[in-house]
Amino acid sequence: MRFSRAFLPVLKESPADAQIVSHKLMLQAGLVRQTAAGIYAWLPLGFRVLQKIEQIVREEQDRAGAQEMLMPTLQSAELWRTSGRYDAYGPEMLRIKDRHDREMLYGPTNEEMITAIFRDEVKSYRELPRTLYHIQWKFRDEVRPRFGVMRGREFLMKDAYSFDLDEAGARQSYYTQMLAYLRTFQRMGIKAVPMKADSGPIGGDLSHEFIVLAPTGESEVFYDAAYDTFDWNQPDLRYGDEAGLQGLFDQVNSTYAATDETHDEARWGDVADDRKRTGRGIEVGHIFYFGDKYSESMGLKVSGSDGQMVTPMMGSYGVGVSRLVGAIIEASHDEAGIIWPEAVAPWKVGIVTMRADDEPTAAAAESLYADLQSAGIDVLYDDRNERGGVKLGTMDLIGLPWQVIVGPRGIANGVVELKNRATGEREELNVDAAMARLTA
Amino acid sequence: MRFSRAFLPVLKESPADAQIVSHKLMLQAGLVRQTAAGIYAWLPLGFRVLQKIEQIVREEQDRAGAQEMLMPTLQSAELWRTSGRYDAYGPEMLRIKDRHDREMLYGPTNEEMITAIFRDEVKSYRELPRTLYHIQWKFRDEVRPRFGVMRGREFLMKDAYSFDLDEAGARQSYYTQMLAYLRTFQRMGIKAVPMKADSGPIGGDLSHEFIVLAPTGESEVFYDAAYDTFDWNQPDLRYGDEAGLQGLFDQVNSTYAATDETHDEARWGDVADDRKRTGRGIEVGHIFYFGDKYSESMGLKVSGSDGQMVTPMMGSYGVGVSRLVGAIIEASHDEAGIIWPEAVAPWKVGIVTMRADDEPTAAAAESLYADLQSAGIDVLYDDRNERGGVKLGTMDLIGLPWQVIVGPRGIANGVVELKNRATGEREELNVDAAMARLTA
Repeated sequence: MRFSRAFLPVLKESPADAQIVSHKLMLQAGLVRQTAAGIYAWLPLGFRVLQKIEQIVREEQDRAGAQEMLMPTLQSAELWRTSGRYDAYGPEMLRIKDRHDREMLYGPTNEEMITAIFRDEVKSYRELPRTLYHIQWKFRDEVRPRFGVMRGREFLMKDAYSFDLDEAGARQSYYTQMLAYLRTFQRMGIKAVPMKADSGPIGGDLSHEFIVLAPTGESEVFYDAAYDTFDWNQPDLRYGDEAGLQGLFDQVNSTYAATDETHDEARWGDVADDRKRTGRGIEVGHIFYFGDKYSESMGLKVSGSDGQMVTPMMGSYGVGVSRLVGAIIEASHDEAGIIWPEAVAPWKVGIVTMRADDEPTAAAAESLYADLQSAGIDVLYDDRNERGGVKLGTMDLIGLPWQVIVGPRGIANGVVELKNRATGEREELNVDAAMARLTA
Repeated sequence: MRFSRAFLPVLKESPADAQIVSHKLMLQAGLVRQTAAGIYAWLPLGFRVLQKIEQIVREEQDRAGAQEMLMPTLQSAELWRTSGRYDAYGPEMLRIKDRHDREMLYGPTNEEMITAIFRDEVKSYRELPRTLYHIQWKFRDEVRPRFGVMRGREFLMKDAYSFDLDEAGARQSYYTQMLAYLRTFQRMGIKAVPMKADSGPIGGDLSHEFIVLAPTGESEVFYDAAYDTFDWNQPDLRYGDEAGLQGLFDQVNSTYAATDETHDEARWGDVADDRKRTGRGIEVGHIFYFGDKYSESMGLKVSGSDGQMVTPMMGSYGVGVSRLVGAIIEASHDEAGIIWPEAVAPWKVGIVTMRADDEPTAAAAESLYADLQSAGIDVLYDDRNERGGVKLGTMDLIGLPWQVIVGPRGIANGVVELKNRATGEREELNVDAAMARLTA
């Protein structure tokens, strides 16, 4: 993408009305614009990041055997009356009447709908287990929306739902999603620690939040340093390996991590002092086992292998896809701007010409741009006729992982400068070496 | 995907309550389920098709230089009051009040919002032309939703908006989108003919509908047989080539095609009799130039190269993404079920074992399944322990382009049967030859 033809509105000043750094940076770098309270339009830069995050979530769900579908945003009130939640849900539910005065709502979540769909199609134990998911916009009518996309009203969520014949099966589905989540966040280049969450009326140990560590986080967190080094992609841990998944769960459960809400001073005391880590964090995912709560209320039963009717046991698994954009920025930025992990960066490489009006400089940049594109690299080429310093500042602000700085003096010597946004390291290289480095 | 583990609910009987064939087939083959009047959940099979169509639309928009973003589903009434459309729009607009009694609406289209966003960011002629698009769910509160996703209430649409400094530029943007549309539909394997549409109060020749030919279509159509053979991917026609795009437009404008609404008997009389084609069709896209209608009412002005303020000229360009799923089925099916064009098929290949309980048959099918997957082919493996005839019927119903039929007798001789869904041709081949054919 050429900057001169792109729709990338960058603000000169940091907006004064945003309270947290991710919101400031998302406005300043032109990721989003607010169109109504707590409702945002995603401009091309923000949309690219949102789409990369969504695609990682999708691929890791597919890899874990979950099947994608898509439920609508609007739901009938009738459906929610069946579970009893229509009246129980507070004013955060956006209630709507259509032209025929039928009561509807903008879905804040989909337990009722997925359970009803599954109920109407699945009749036999042979058709279980199944985990279904979708990635769809939701609405929660927050009384005071704030912090940009971190607590907006219209937000993008991945929600998955598992259906099993018994609790043992449901535990395996839960472990499977736990592993999928650990891999999802690791792949995004962020540290998200699973923390035992309040499991509500059902009790038990099957409720975890995934918390991204960021100094500005909403919760205080306490965790074992072991989480700093876990690699969740160990090749000997496979989906479908029941003992392995149980082992993963036991490992997570026995390695301390908690938010202030579930913090247990006694267990914390057992963690060696040199392994104690504290900080703040932002919730980006929540997995939850709720047994037969919705299958019971929505009337989902299947015939078991012995001919008796069985009520399936369910869990739900949420990832805040749009929230992640903000959370990643909270976790990864500096005074100059955003620092995107490569996996979610809108473009991997930004090319900056220090003098767009210098013919050899522009020619070298053009040729590098063409070569990187041919090599399949996502590249933004800042070909604008602006001062070099302004363009470098913009590149730092929008946070692409690599900058290639092309200037008249360097080009006279056949070299460009390669800058790593995260470390700030700059290196002079000849053009071929820069290409080799960026396409390695 | 293994059928035995998939969520692919196929109905034995054709549903009696659906009036048109695409709706019947979408229910029977398990593409969608209605969750409220005119609102559908997309089950995995339908979602895969929807996503393939969406991706083709996206890639062809990108190729034409349009930039993707994403606007929210809910909009403020205030925005629509600025253009005057809040009061003008009828009961098809779903009007909503939030918890603070603020008036909102579920967007049926996005002219106001994109114009406001563009207005707030773009100040200079240097930042034009631009074409922006998004693919988002819309809502139109149809009084009698029917025909499944063809006239649903919540529907997925791609809408693009172009901004130019003058009408000459806007014409080029219009031609560019016209070519993108021709390429988009051609790539989906359907014939969509551009037909001059009523251009409303602005007049002029810049409004076209794209009509998929299908005997069950809503409109009567009249067109020149030349459209049966046009190839819109001719390599010498490039985006940015002004004369070439003008030539394309002239060619379309001089080759007769019209719906009953705009049919011109005099011009039709000039078409040679042996080139006259009539039939019925379904609208799947509409492109439209509206000049300064929204830039004027929303207050969008930029400074021109001479320092004077200029009101940009705009066009909008819609594709009915979810509607296309139904339209393609209307255009491509037989008594046995759907016949997917390969580009939008949920899977390219279906493997059917005629006897899942016969060990050599199952082993051969498993190995073919693994090999096709390794080769990157989308494949559905019907490994269910059902009668062969039932499984073949299901494959015909869901309409995958290729079926590989694996039976005990064939496997004893080292052969499988390859069936082309569209032509019905069946051929016995050894396994390697079948692989070679499917991965060619």
